[in-house]
Amino acid sequence: MINGPYLLFLGDAPDPLAAKVAQGIRDWRPDASVGQLRLAGCNADMGLADMSVAEAVDAGAKTLVIGVANRGGMISDTWIEALIEALEAGLDIASGLHNLLRDEPRLVEAANRLGRQLHDVRIPSVKYPIANGKKRTGKRLLAIGTDCSIGKMYTAIAMERVMLERGMKATFRATGQTGILITGDGVPLDAVVADFMAGAVEYLTPDNDADHWDLIEGQGSLFHASYSGVTMALIHGGQPDALILCHEPTRTHMRGLPDYALPSLEELRDIGLTLAQVVNKGAQVIGISVNTSAMERPAAEAYLAELEQRFGLPAVDPFAQGADRLVDALP
Amino acid sequence: MINGPYLLFLGDAPDPLAAKVAQGIRDWRPDASVGQLRLAGCNADMGLADMSVAEAVDAGAKTLVIGVANRGGMISDTWIEALIEALEAGLDIASGLHNLLRDEPRLVEAANRLGRQLHDVRIPSVKYPIANGKKRTGKRLLAIGTDCSIGKMYTAIAMERVMLERGMKATFRATGQTGILITGDGVPLDAVVADFMAGAVEYLTPDNDADHWDLIEGQGSLFHASYSGVTMALIHGGQPDALILCHEPTRTHMRGLPDYALPSLEELRDIGLTLAQVVNKGAQVIGISVNTSAMERPAAEAYLAELEQRFGLPAVDPFAQGADRLVDALP
Repeated sequence: MINGPYLLFLGDAPDPLAAKVAQGIRDWRPDASVGQLRLAGCNADMGLADMSVAEAVDAGAKTLVIGVANRGGMISDTWIEALIEALEAGLDIASGLHNLLRDEPRLVEAANRLGRQLHDVRIPSVKYPIANGKKRTGKRLLAIGTDCSIGKMYTAIAMERVMLERGMKATFRATGQTGILITGDGVPLDAVVADFMAGAVEYLTPDNDADHWDLIEGQGSLFHASYSGVTMALIHGGQPDALILCHEPTRTHMRGLPDYALPSLEELRDIGLTLAQVVNKGAQVIGISVNTSAMERPAAEAYLAELEQRFGLPAVDPFAQGADRLVDALP
Repeated sequence: MINGPYLLFLGDAPDPLAAKVAQGIRDWRPDASVGQLRLAGCNADMGLADMSVAEAVDAGAKTLVIGVANRGGMISDTWIEALIEALEAGLDIASGLHNLLRDEPRLVEAANRLGRQLHDVRIPSVKYPIANGKKRTGKRLLAIGTDCSIGKMYTAIAMERVMLERGMKATFRATGQTGILITGDGVPLDAVVADFMAGAVEYLTPDNDADHWDLIEGQGSLFHASYSGVTMALIHGGQPDALILCHEPTRTHMRGLPDYALPSLEELRDIGLTLAQVVNKGAQVIGISVNTSAMERPAAEAYLAELEQRFGLPAVDPFAQGADRLVDALP
């Protein structure tokens, strides 16, 4: 569990894209951060108050979250100095970088000396059990996609926001690095050892109130040759009552696999539902979430209308239009 | 790579069942071992020559293979003494135990001092790549099951044996501890980190001669809530040209999951084939392998005949009847 609120570290981000993680936190948890810390040469701006480490501590910050990718796969000396200053001022540090905080001796030494936490959210911090497949109380929703990186996380978070606004019981359950940094908790599923994947998802979505919904962050795709096993474990560990199909209509091939075409939404629906019903006979597909960011507005609207007709399900872009109609479709 | 031939270590096995790994090696690679080493109190016997470590070295042994489960999850002092004696006599040691050899300081010290290898086959020894999904040359077969522990490994090894006898090009590809100890090589797939599972299977079954068959050891089941993600990675990493369906007709529920019934062979065929065709359009189901060990002979034969009728595919028990008809069915 990563303690909030955060100080968002933007470092010396060469451009806004390098600060994608910070962007996700700012977009989805605007109240999670007291401010941003930018070093010389930073070209990203989250529109938060610029703060020194000391100012952030005064404003109540508990953890410095690295919201930026590092250049060239190294944690630079400039960063290290800023991070040690943060530890000395009383902050923990959380990171989703490939280079682990725990592999930087100077950070480890300072954290040990000061009694601070270093959170490497790419690495599981728990010994997960093997899945037992038992039925749990409460409800679960999982977004599955025709491809990776297609809007599954955004769909789940957008639904959580609407549900909380309506006073419903809902929890977004993060399964990837950005999701974990957004929420402060979760399972880095792609780093879990094979035998424990489904068990990690069961651990993440335990028994709950009968009217509570876990909104589980999807990973990979059943149709993606590299990562389909992770998706499978999410379906069988998550035992979803409701599935959302996610799609990006302009994509010409599977991400990173130029020889593979995307499946149709019908194929995704049929196989996703069949596999979900192995562990939950009542599983149903309740809606379609489309990332229309690469489409003109009228074309996007015509496409969504056509999908609704074809599938008899609400089809929306939750980022552009909000997730209300997906929430309305929950059983 | 584990060097052969082996000295099979049966330790103080309380009964033959405890020596299941040794049994698999003896059944499937009768020439792999020069003899067996039994300690006081051993109640298992592979029918091999009893040898001391020194005699085994004289007979050409290169590796002592632990073919027995240890009692109470501890590697006992009695074992340690025998294992250190083996290292001193010039043998490497290979083990599939949950307790790792590398966690026993006395073994590590002796191996380092003597320049010997300790092979813990439960732990990946390679940094596997992320799968790239590219088409490889050569052919691949994968056995998939209605449940775990249902005969997938035996099916693949039995087919390899027939194919080699016929002068065909074939390699059994081990993906589990026993298979790795039988062949001396392979990928311990259930211990691989999620993101690299399919890549590990690609690594295990690389480009090969056009008429060469990899016979890939299956793991788990698409219908087993705990392990289905591993099965999925085998299908998408393996890109099988041919699938064999494995079944045990008397089993009343999924192994370890008392609330789950086994799927039908039709369900397994349909979903297995659909998923295999994501990565290999030409994938086909070529036969059915049934473990009939719990059935009377006439009932087993009637059952197999009924399956052949129902599916239009050869249905055999490869352990009882040999795998010839499955090999005949290869495309």
